[in-house]
Amino acid sequence: MAEKVGFVGLGIMGQPMARNLIEAGYELVLFNRTKGKAEELAGDNATVADSPKEVAGSADVVITMLPDSPDVARVVAGEDGVLEGVREGALIVDMSTISPVVARDLAEKARERGVSMLDAPVSGGDVGAIQGTLSIMVGGSEEDFERARQLFEVMGKTITHVGEAGAGQVVKACNQIVVALTYEAVSEALVLGSKAGVEPSKILDVLSGGLAGNRIMELKRDNFLNHSFDPGFRIELHAKDLGIALAAGREYGVALPVTAIVDQVLEALKAKGRGDRDHSAILTYIEDLAQHRIGEGS
Amino acid sequence: MAEKVGFVGLGIMGQPMARNLIEAGYELVLFNRTKGKAEELAGDNATVADSPKEVAGSADVVITMLPDSPDVARVVAGEDGVLEGVREGALIVDMSTISPVVARDLAEKARERGVSMLDAPVSGGDVGAIQGTLSIMVGGSEEDFERARQLFEVMGKTITHVGEAGAGQVVKACNQIVVALTYEAVSEALVLGSKAGVEPSKILDVLSGGLAGNRIMELKRDNFLNHSFDPGFRIELHAKDLGIALAAGREYGVALPVTAIVDQVLEALKAKGRGDRDHSAILTYIEDLAQHRIGEGS
Repeated sequence: MAEKVGFVGLGIMGQPMARNLIEAGYELVLFNRTKGKAEELAGDNATVADSPKEVAGSADVVITMLPDSPDVARVVAGEDGVLEGVREGALIVDMSTISPVVARDLAEKARERGVSMLDAPVSGGDVGAIQGTLSIMVGGSEEDFERARQLFEVMGKTITHVGEAGAGQVVKACNQIVVALTYEAVSEALVLGSKAGVEPSKILDVLSGGLAGNRIMELKRDNFLNHSFDPGFRIELHAKDLGIALAAGREYGVALPVTAIVDQVLEALKAKGRGDRDHSAILTYIEDLAQHRIGEGS
Repeated sequence: MAEKVGFVGLGIMGQPMARNLIEAGYELVLFNRTKGKAEELAGDNATVADSPKEVAGSADVVITMLPDSPDVARVVAGEDGVLEGVREGALIVDMSTISPVVARDLAEKARERGVSMLDAPVSGGDVGAIQGTLSIMVGGSEEDFERARQLFEVMGKTITHVGEAGAGQVVKACNQIVVALTYEAVSEALVLGSKAGVEPSKILDVLSGGLAGNRIMELKRDNFLNHSFDPGFRIELHAKDLGIALAAGREYGVALPVTAIVDQVLEALKAKGRGDRDHSAILTYIEDLAQHRIGEGS
């Protein structure tokens, strides 16, 4: 018999993920702070609960998809939270992007309460959530991973067990470091090249063919060349994620000198009022420094 | 009738490039400061000259492949240099990686002397030079580019005309920025992830599947995972190239904040005695900061 799934957090990511589970035939119990978002999904196979505790009381697996570490800590371990209502033998799966340290702490609290927990952050954005093609990187025991695998396969395409509790969040932090620093690299190259008189499209063409090649130049080409920065993934969320990476660096004793600089770039972009723009708008920070918009002549 | 080709600079790159031209049936006139390197190539279709001036006196196209801007300036515009001996209607092709500003100045000097010049730096390393698969990015007039195209096609695979004089060097500088910053990005991610307890190979696997994916994680995977840093492309050469990028930024009024930091990382690696290691050894700088060697547990 398929397990009954609780789902807490029905925002831009959580709502389509929960919808995919319902459409795959799972029975869901939903909670969202703004109740309307839960009620939109309610139907034959989905009921709405009044608290995370109530969700946990009637589910075998409880998934959380929330903005940040404090939200997950409150929903899982706070008053009327999941751990207050959780059934024996249940599994908690946090798919938010949060601090690996908080993820480990919550897994430990769950263990003390006699239940298992996985951290399973995703990449792929709202499009991946809607299409069920997310990448999911999972930390926790092999046994719990196998138990959740069928659910993951409804929501995602590339599903990888990367290590023990917290490891999923660690790998997500690594991912966000490489993505942010690659935007910075491509931005510095494009602004230098363009202000020195070279067509930005030529720069992307040549660099893509060699060791400099990357997915960002391929997938975000039009964003760069047309200055189209509708999200996508927002600057303010990427700033949050680099904050997590830097906090993890502090916890584990790892200096991240360039991640720290690019984190400051994202802060500056937020201050410029571009926090709601796509992360490819890192380009505009370098453009502002040079007083040059790429593609507009030298 | 095929043009007679002069070739100045027969180092680790120049020698195989010249050899490929000879094997393709071109008649060459060679010069190298250490004469032995030229004599190794001498034969039915290749003779050795005593100066760049003498090379120029008997060639239709003169190719230079030298370490740095001052070398090219001396060989082209110095005493006994190419411009002293060059024939009317000849074409000079500098394939070294040098300052775009110096490249433009030399092209201007050549023009005053009544000859054309292209800047045509390459990427692809000694392996690309040997196999004739270099990427060649060319600055100069369309007409001169077309005239040199057959020669380029012997030495390289991806040949792109990117703009006017200096543009080839600009794009090469852009390339070296993205490559260096990508090494830094992957290095920070790997050291954070590994010290936090995740297998480095898992990190590369997961990141390669998404927006963080890049050629460096693909082609340099074994270098990172096995700490094998035999060059390849040496740290000290990449440091030279970022120096060129930063000087170009100064010239064109473009601030390159992260390129500047990674340039300092390369300087530090040179000071640590690793200037002769492959550029993937940027990893070891971040490892040193964290006192952690990736793959050796947290």
